[in-house]
Amino acid sequence: MKIGFIGLGNMGTGMARNLLRAGHHVVVYNRTSGKAQALAADGARIAATPADCCRDSEAVFTMLSDDSAAESAVFGEDGIAGALAAGAVHVSSSTIGTAMARRLAAAHAARGQEYLSAPVFGRPEAAESAKLIVVVAGPAGPIARCRPLFEAIGRQTFEVGPEPWQANALKLCGNFMLASMLESFGEAVACLRKARVDPQVFLDAIVALFGSPVYANYGRMVVEERFEPAGFALRLALKDVRLVLETAQEVVAPMPVASLVRDRLLSAMALDQANLDWSSIAKVSARSAGLRDS
Amino acid sequence: MKIGFIGLGNMGTGMARNLLRAGHHVVVYNRTSGKAQALAADGARIAATPADCCRDSEAVFTMLSDDSAAESAVFGEDGIAGALAAGAVHVSSSTIGTAMARRLAAAHAARGQEYLSAPVFGRPEAAESAKLIVVVAGPAGPIARCRPLFEAIGRQTFEVGPEPWQANALKLCGNFMLASMLESFGEAVACLRKARVDPQVFLDAIVALFGSPVYANYGRMVVEERFEPAGFALRLALKDVRLVLETAQEVVAPMPVASLVRDRLLSAMALDQANLDWSSIAKVSARSAGLRDS
Amino acid sequence: MKIGFIGLGNMGTGMARNLLRAGHHVVVYNRTSGKAQALAADGARIAATPADCCRDSEAVFTMLSDDSAAESAVFGEDGIAGALAAGAVHVSSSTIGTAMARRLAAAHAARGQEYLSAPVFGRPEAAESAKLIVVVAGPAGPIARCRPLFEAIGRQTFEVGPEPWQANALKLCGNFMLASMLESFGEAVACLRKARVDPQVFLDAIVALFGSPVYANYGRMVVEERFEPAGFALRLALKDVRLVLETAQEVVAPMPVASLVRDRLLSAMALDQANLDWSSIAKVSARSAGLRDS
Amino acid sequence: MKIGFIGLGNMGTGMARNLLRAGHHVVVYNRTSGKAQALAADGARIAATPADCCRDSEAVFTMLSDDSAAESAVFGEDGIAGALAAGAVHVSSSTIGTAMARRLAAAHAARGQEYLSAPVFGRPEAAESAKLIVVVAGPAGPIARCRPLFEAIGRQTFEVGPEPWQANALKLCGNFMLASMLESFGEAVACLRKARVDPQVFLDAIVALFGSPVYANYGRMVVEERFEPAGFALRLALKDVRLVLETAQEVVAPMPVASLVRDRLLSAMALDQANLDWSSIAKVSARSAGLRDS
Repeated sequence: MKIGFIGLGNMGTGMARNLLRAGHHVVVYNRTSGKAQALAADGARIAATPADCCRDSEAVFTMLSDDSAAESAVFGEDGIAGALAAGAVHVSSSTIGTAMARRLAAAHAARGQEYLSAPVFGRPEAAESAKLIVVVAGPAGPIARCRPLFEAIGRQTFEVGPEPWQANALKLCGNFMLASMLESFGEAVACLRKARVDPQVFLDAIVALFGSPVYANYGRMVVEERFEPAGFALRLALKDVRLVLETAQEVVAPMPVASLVRDRLLSAMALDQANLDWSSIAKVSARSAGLRDS
Repeated sequence: MKIGFIGLGNMGTGMARNLLRAGHHVVVYNRTSGKAQALAADGARIAATPADCCRDSEAVFTMLSDDSAAESAVFGEDGIAGALAAGAVHVSSSTIGTAMARRLAAAHAARGQEYLSAPVFGRPEAAESAKLIVVVAGPAGPIARCRPLFEAIGRQTFEVGPEPWQANALKLCGNFMLASMLESFGEAVACLRKARVDPQVFLDAIVALFGSPVYANYGRMVVEERFEPAGFALRLALKDVRLVLETAQEVVAPMPVASLVRDRLLSAMALDQANLDWSSIAKVSARSAGLRDS
Repeated sequence: MKIGFIGLGNMGTGMARNLLRAGHHVVVYNRTSGKAQALAADGARIAATPADCCRDSEAVFTMLSDDSAAESAVFGEDGIAGALAAGAVHVSSSTIGTAMARRLAAAHAARGQEYLSAPVFGRPEAAESAKLIVVVAGPAGPIARCRPLFEAIGRQTFEVGPEPWQANALKLCGNFMLASMLESFGEAVACLRKARVDPQVFLDAIVALFGSPVYANYGRMVVEERFEPAGFALRLALKDVRLVLETAQEVVAPMPVASLVRDRLLSAMALDQANLDWSSIAKVSARSAGLRDS
Repeated sequence: MKIGFIGLGNMGTGMARNLLRAGHHVVVYNRTSGKAQALAADGARIAATPADCCRDSEAVFTMLSDDSAAESAVFGEDGIAGALAAGAVHVSSSTIGTAMARRLAAAHAARGQEYLSAPVFGRPEAAESAKLIVVVAGPAGPIARCRPLFEAIGRQTFEVGPEPWQANALKLCGNFMLASMLESFGEAVACLRKARVDPQVFLDAIVALFGSPVYANYGRMVVEERFEPAGFALRLALKDVRLVLETAQEVVAPMPVASLVRDRLLSAMALDQANLDWSSIAKVSARSAGLRDS
């Protein structure tokens, strides 16, 4: 297929490369052009604007950092909305809010274009090795046409529902599950450190109990207090928890743990942790227990 | 070794049987005698009182439901404290509080007896198949002597520290990790149900993301709203969260997610869920989002 | 002075009337015109559009329900922004968010117009009897010019700071103090009802303790479970708590009680209390304690 | 009447003196004897033990710091239980837990003695000037006999119910209302300080809004960050919030604001505020917003 790909950050680069590897024609665009060069060597054509990425494409992916970046790429000058062909599909893989997803869906529909939300779970390594988990929502036709693309970038694809924003709701709830796990682990570790229990022993027991590599990886960062470089920056985690709370408000469902996690992330922001990994939320529990950084 | 075993509930029966299978001499006691009969067929001798369980034993396990049951078994009439030989060890595997653990340790020390806290992680099936996770704390000598016993009942043993109550602190924090996961999952499911997303799809994605059988098993109970029979009754989960908060208070470490989970469990109790599985904490989130039981 | 007044709800009508009583020339506008007629009898001129309200006015008040209504009145067709004279002042008394206040301030500054935020505390009766508490922020000149107007509508005026949004921050924090008091009182009443203590006795003791008519008035509504007609609708309270949390996020200050109150209000919304008085937040505590409406 | 009075702290001294002023015969006891001397000058007889305080007394007050002190005074050597005459009444004015109150009631009933819980609201100045608020619960007969005593120490007496512990439940809920107000005020002040609003202006507006001397007094301590000497020590506030949560658990009623306040007080304890005034809970909000002590 002829594909456009906009947004070549840690995640987007791997995803675009795997689309190339699967034999698709890929035109790439990134706001700063350096990152596109690496993909050119793999066969990608480099576009000068988002619109340029769209002209001949049957599907255009966006993998951008937040609502505001998505808004610019779609509605800004030389944006997607004005350039995508009727019948072509915009696949938004960014972790954006449900309100923004509805706005994108409506704008594309008004222009006879298709829109899917297809956010992904996984770290940059998983993007590189085509092991992402893709959660997609929207009309059945475009989903069927794009399925080979999802299979090229991920290890599993889940269909969430007929309305694109439902996939964003699910993605945000998934990130909330991770964030709440980090908060709980941080609380437990602070309590146990004050009980003079070695946090490594707790981590070993928890990993044995849950049998989850996610607990093992994040738990190690917390136990070793090694929060740089950030795999996922705390300020982005705050954005996601804020977005899940907005979704919760839209559908009228209280999420008290999400509220609590938001306040803890905010406290972390106030103490200069914006660019540390989000697992550094554990430092908030440590401080409120009177523990010094070790 | 000559072993006493007090408390033949869902967990204790399997543990005692595995000690027999490993070739130890086991004397068993249960407050209601029916459960002991099954073990007699496996070679256990049945004792008439806790004290009777202790007389010739080098180690006596207790696997009881709460602090009050442990207190009775140790300090009550015909209790362990008065009968255990000097130098013999009481191994408490019950999920009791840290204050009670310190009280037991002191009482045994005053009588020249040894005391270990060795609580376990795992459901009754794991107890039956010798796949428990054992977390033990106390003096090195008794731990070394009892290590073959832990290996007979579990798949992994973790040494937590020199003071017995430290193992109880770790065990309570582990149960807190499970309880907070259930609360978070319940919040997410309520939000997604109101967004008309099929909870089963969310569960599938979460299981793919975390790669944890614990999420798969509990998640299925929540998604299918199947909370009976209880693998672990909600009233016992409330007890454990109350105990972790007492430990947190002792060591002066706030645990706000634990506080929140306690309140949710209390709300579940007020709405007659005491004997449902603790995963039914999800019903609290559902109700507060205005969802009816489906 | 020549004054425009936009927004003649429960609060605005009394405020406009008191400006008339103080001898000012007042031109009024309301989206639905019926409410303006009553003021015409008191000497007000009725305008056909917000712009019409502005033409000859030295100061134009807005007293509208939320950010969106304020946005329409200022930026919409025939709005304030296009009609207010250079040097004239827009006094926003609505309970709007701090981000909207900054946006209004910037828009007016760009047109050479002045802008003040001057939200008020008090119920409709206080608006009618000129007993509001006015909190004003913005540049010193316009504040000095408008001081006689504030004195005409209120019993006390507080100057908050040089930036208009600071008054909105203070107003939102004041409403948060009221909302958190209602939540706490609801929790205590639920606990005491389950302890078979007459809530009226608790209220009497609390009123004696705090010596506050606010506790007396709201407490009576909770104790008598009389939530209609709404003095202040619960859905508006949710809006205000959401806005205070947005302000808290802007300035990076966690407000966990505000987060909790937001979740309780959301639960109330999910159970059809949107149009009840905000003191009906107490029903959430009652339900979660298993109490039926009495 | 012949009265015994046990516990001559900041509160008890004033209460005992007012009983003397009202013409009663008062025998006083304090664990450390210095404080009793001052009352001797006012006509009190000094007893050597709690029991000695009881022998000829028709009513014996206890005004002690916590459950453990009450337990010692009643059940310890030379305690009240063994010395109070049949038909005489023990009036417990201490802020103790509801479980302890039930235990005291049962123990006195078993000995043919009467028992009332009659905790009080008010600071030491109010105790000295007979302006306490008394909340009493228990059987009607003893309450009627003791009413002149309550009138001698307070400005208002509220009858709570037939079971003594109900008065303790109400008292604890009252202290919870104060503690939650302090937490909310601290959150608002932290937010406003970060918005560069003068907290004094906020306090002035809040006092105008609530019209409550309680807000004025505590608000001033927070705004001026003057937490010593402690009118009511933070560690005692933590005790009271812990007790209200125990009551809430007994009656099965979640109190999430109480849980949150408990965690904030615990964080304050971890940062060495045990002996500061409980209004210093505001420092927790300040710290978590990244504010330094000013």
